[in-house]
Amino acid sequence: MAQVRNNLYAILEGAHPKWGRLYALFSNTVIVVAVLVYAFSTLPNLTPAQRLTLQLAEVFVITVFAADYFLRLGSAPKPLKYAFSFWGIIDLIAFLPALILAGTDLTSARLLRLIQLARILKLTRLASAFDNMLAAVREIREQLLIFLILTLIVLFLSAVGIYQFEHKAQPDVFVSVPHALWWSVATLSTVGYGDIYPITAGGKIFTAVILLIGLAVIAVPTGLISAALVSKTNATNKENHDDEP
Amino acid sequence: MAQVRNNLYAILEGAHPKWGRLYALFSNTVIVVAVLVYAFSTLPNLTPAQRLTLQLAEVFVITVFAADYFLRLGSAPKPLKYAFSFWGIIDLIAFLPALILAGTDLTSARLLRLIQLARILKLTRLASAFDNMLAAVREIREQLLIFLILTLIVLFLSAVGIYQFEHKAQPDVFVSVPHALWWSVATLSTVGYGDIYPITAGGKIFTAVILLIGLAVIAVPTGLISAALVSKTNATNKENHDDEP
Amino acid sequence: MAQVRNNLYAILEGAHPKWGRLYALFSNTVIVVAVLVYAFSTLPNLTPAQRLTLQLAEVFVITVFAADYFLRLGSAPKPLKYAFSFWGIIDLIAFLPALILAGTDLTSARLLRLIQLARILKLTRLASAFDNMLAAVREIREQLLIFLILTLIVLFLSAVGIYQFEHKAQPDVFVSVPHALWWSVATLSTVGYGDIYPITAGGKIFTAVILLIGLAVIAVPTGLISAALVSKTNATNKENHDDEP
Amino acid sequence: MAQVRNNLYAILEGAHPKWGRLYALFSNTVIVVAVLVYAFSTLPNLTPAQRLTLQLAEVFVITVFAADYFLRLGSAPKPLKYAFSFWGIIDLIAFLPALILAGTDLTSARLLRLIQLARILKLTRLASAFDNMLAAVREIREQLLIFLILTLIVLFLSAVGIYQFEHKAQPDVFVSVPHALWWSVATLSTVGYGDIYPITAGGKIFTAVILLIGLAVIAVPTGLISAALVSKTNATNKENHDDEP
Repeated sequence: MAQVRNNLYAILEGAHPKWGRLYALFSNTVIVVAVLVYAFSTLPNLTPAQRLTLQLAEVFVITVFAADYFLRLGSAPKPLKYAFSFWGIIDLIAFLPALILAGTDLTSARLLRLIQLARILKLTRLASAFDNMLAAVREIREQLLIFLILTLIVLFLSAVGIYQFEHKAQPDVFVSVPHALWWSVATLSTVGYGDIYPITAGGKIFTAVILLIGLAVIAVPTGLISAALVSKTNATNKENHDDEP
Repeated sequence: MAQVRNNLYAILEGAHPKWGRLYALFSNTVIVVAVLVYAFSTLPNLTPAQRLTLQLAEVFVITVFAADYFLRLGSAPKPLKYAFSFWGIIDLIAFLPALILAGTDLTSARLLRLIQLARILKLTRLASAFDNMLAAVREIREQLLIFLILTLIVLFLSAVGIYQFEHKAQPDVFVSVPHALWWSVATLSTVGYGDIYPITAGGKIFTAVILLIGLAVIAVPTGLISAALVSKTNATNKENHDDEP
Repeated sequence: MAQVRNNLYAILEGAHPKWGRLYALFSNTVIVVAVLVYAFSTLPNLTPAQRLTLQLAEVFVITVFAADYFLRLGSAPKPLKYAFSFWGIIDLIAFLPALILAGTDLTSARLLRLIQLARILKLTRLASAFDNMLAAVREIREQLLIFLILTLIVLFLSAVGIYQFEHKAQPDVFVSVPHALWWSVATLSTVGYGDIYPITAGGKIFTAVILLIGLAVIAVPTGLISAALVSKTNATNKENHDDEP
Repeated sequence: MAQVRNNLYAILEGAHPKWGRLYALFSNTVIVVAVLVYAFSTLPNLTPAQRLTLQLAEVFVITVFAADYFLRLGSAPKPLKYAFSFWGIIDLIAFLPALILAGTDLTSARLLRLIQLARILKLTRLASAFDNMLAAVREIREQLLIFLILTLIVLFLSAVGIYQFEHKAQPDVFVSVPHALWWSVATLSTVGYGDIYPITAGGKIFTAVILLIGLAVIAVPTGLISAALVSKTNATNKENHDDEP
């Protein structure tokens, strides 16, 4: 009996030598299906047949998640510890709200159904490499924080500056500093939707200067994360090599 | 006889000391011509003279590719092995569909003619450095996969978020979550066409937050590939130096 | 008495073991409030109640900044040295103009009030890591200067080139070389608002070539700053490790 | 006499201990003035006074450049070698066309006047660090070439793909593959002007996939250049340190 239970737990955790990988693949596929069902259920003008398909897929997803939860609860060495762990709560949230709302219309109670999207986080469970990455980010968290503050300062000062230049020329576009902040975000991220941009010579020159300075500030964190990740990986590889005789 | 055959094979492979580089240059030029002929043949309002020129160029290209294929087949040490190798199949595809469609109109049968674009891959044949790059990418494929999954999660959650903020204000633009996904792609890649963007205060603040987090996630793979490529190249250079006495 | 004075100074500088961090948090929060008050005061159509709230918040902010200044002045070991130091002047500017303008309307005298935004720089005071970053930037300032010059040359030559291609086709958009410079900035920063872009075949091909060359030039400084920052941090860490027995 | 000549040459080359830096500053300022005069002379609706100012500035610039050229020619150790060197020809081009066109209208003969912009290259003369950078780029020129080819292949295949998806839905926008290439350039550089973008579901999904793959390919060269530059600089610094006793 304990043998069966241990085997079951190993399968659910993806650790079983034979069925572990297969169950992980199945489980992740169900998560992707659940997420796609949510996305498609927001489409307007669905035919009754399409609605039915989505509802059946939802029932299937809920069943799988509920079964997964109760099997984990039953086979875990310490069921209570699992139930109150981070992943235990995510697993519960992944099916419970949907079960409660099962009788209601698919398109109603959207906000509550949003919580189910926590399922998507389960996709990351098996990847041990995530821990490596989080560790790398944690190591440079102080520098990242500084660049976050610098970025916010650059965004704010850009907004104040462009507001001074453009408010008179485009009072309906650059209405206030908060409105100008939207311009800062769209411009310094280089998204540039085209809904708000300077038209005065002063505003354009200011934009050029801000971009020259701002892009350097805003793009540096990416370089830092990459470098930390690379050095972390090298360190891990070296340790592994050192372990070898 | 065997000498002639070996020389011919060396020329075709670009390995012949005298004619190898010259043939490679000729061959690559023909590929570029073939690709340009395809591109220009899609232009509307071509004059009969222009159409004739394109057709003649196409005939020239097919002839060269067919000759190249049969000469390789004839001079290869193991013809069958070549015929069923990756490059052997690409070489065959590069002229066979065009030969079959030779009698039909240039603008017809577009989809079949698309296969010929596999010719473009022949451009990479001579560059041994491509292997170096592919090896570098392969070494970090696990990390790249994680960032691909992270990117997809970020794209999806961004779409769900912006849909909540903008659906009511712009029901015809942010129609559904799949529509909002197009916004996620255009925004987080920083392309920002301007066909879809938030107009509510909540949607704009959400966009700012998503960009702060999302850009870091999405831009990191580039840093990883660069770093892997650099370390790969350094390793290769070091090996070469170590070989020296 | 001297004990109290020393303790007070330690608290204000964030160095006091018990109250230092708390005061720093309070101080930074007040700065953020001050900045938000400035931003919101530019919003049109504020209700009288909202205006009053902003004015009260402004009074609170000025009071805190003035108290902070005079307490620092009173408790500093060398008051005069503080008064004429960089941060001493910033601290003075952070409340004095607002005090002088206290009687006037909130929305008037905007330009003078802008000076108060120097407050935002106080956010960086506690972060000793900023010095690390500035040192890294200073180390590569020669390279950064070269890339600044290269960037300006690329921007200018792009503007001249696109002007030649597009002036005749769009005389009202690409009016002159200075107008074309705005295109250069928006394009090579990849912002691409969509207010100005080439429509001729020549102009589009020129844009493609310029982007291939220009993006490499413009994006390199980011890589340099990241690399300098990483090597600086590694050096600092190594020194710290070397200090250990 | 020879002493005066040597001193003069040292000043012009920026090598004179006392006047060298000053002359370099003056010379570079004149180049910037020349470039700005060219830019402003393309502005429409200039007043007669503004035109006169620009013409006077142009006369000043030509005089300085001509004097610089003849002084260099007279003081150079080997005048003929200088006259036919790269910089000698640039120096000649910088004033000769303008001298020939001096009598004609400022706005006429634009193309010939463009040659004068070669002056801008003189800005880079004094920076010995440019050589360092060019050497770094030269070291990875093979990799850069590969990425250039890869980029062109990605751009072309993207254009062919989007043409298949969008040609029927937007026959006036995605007219042909060459037109679609403009979309590829604007999208994969992330400029995204908004003049051409997919509207079909298939085209949008294709764009998402292309961006995921393409951005990695296109952004890598920047990382490579940065890395080469950093390693080059480190090597140079190490050599300098090794030279020390």
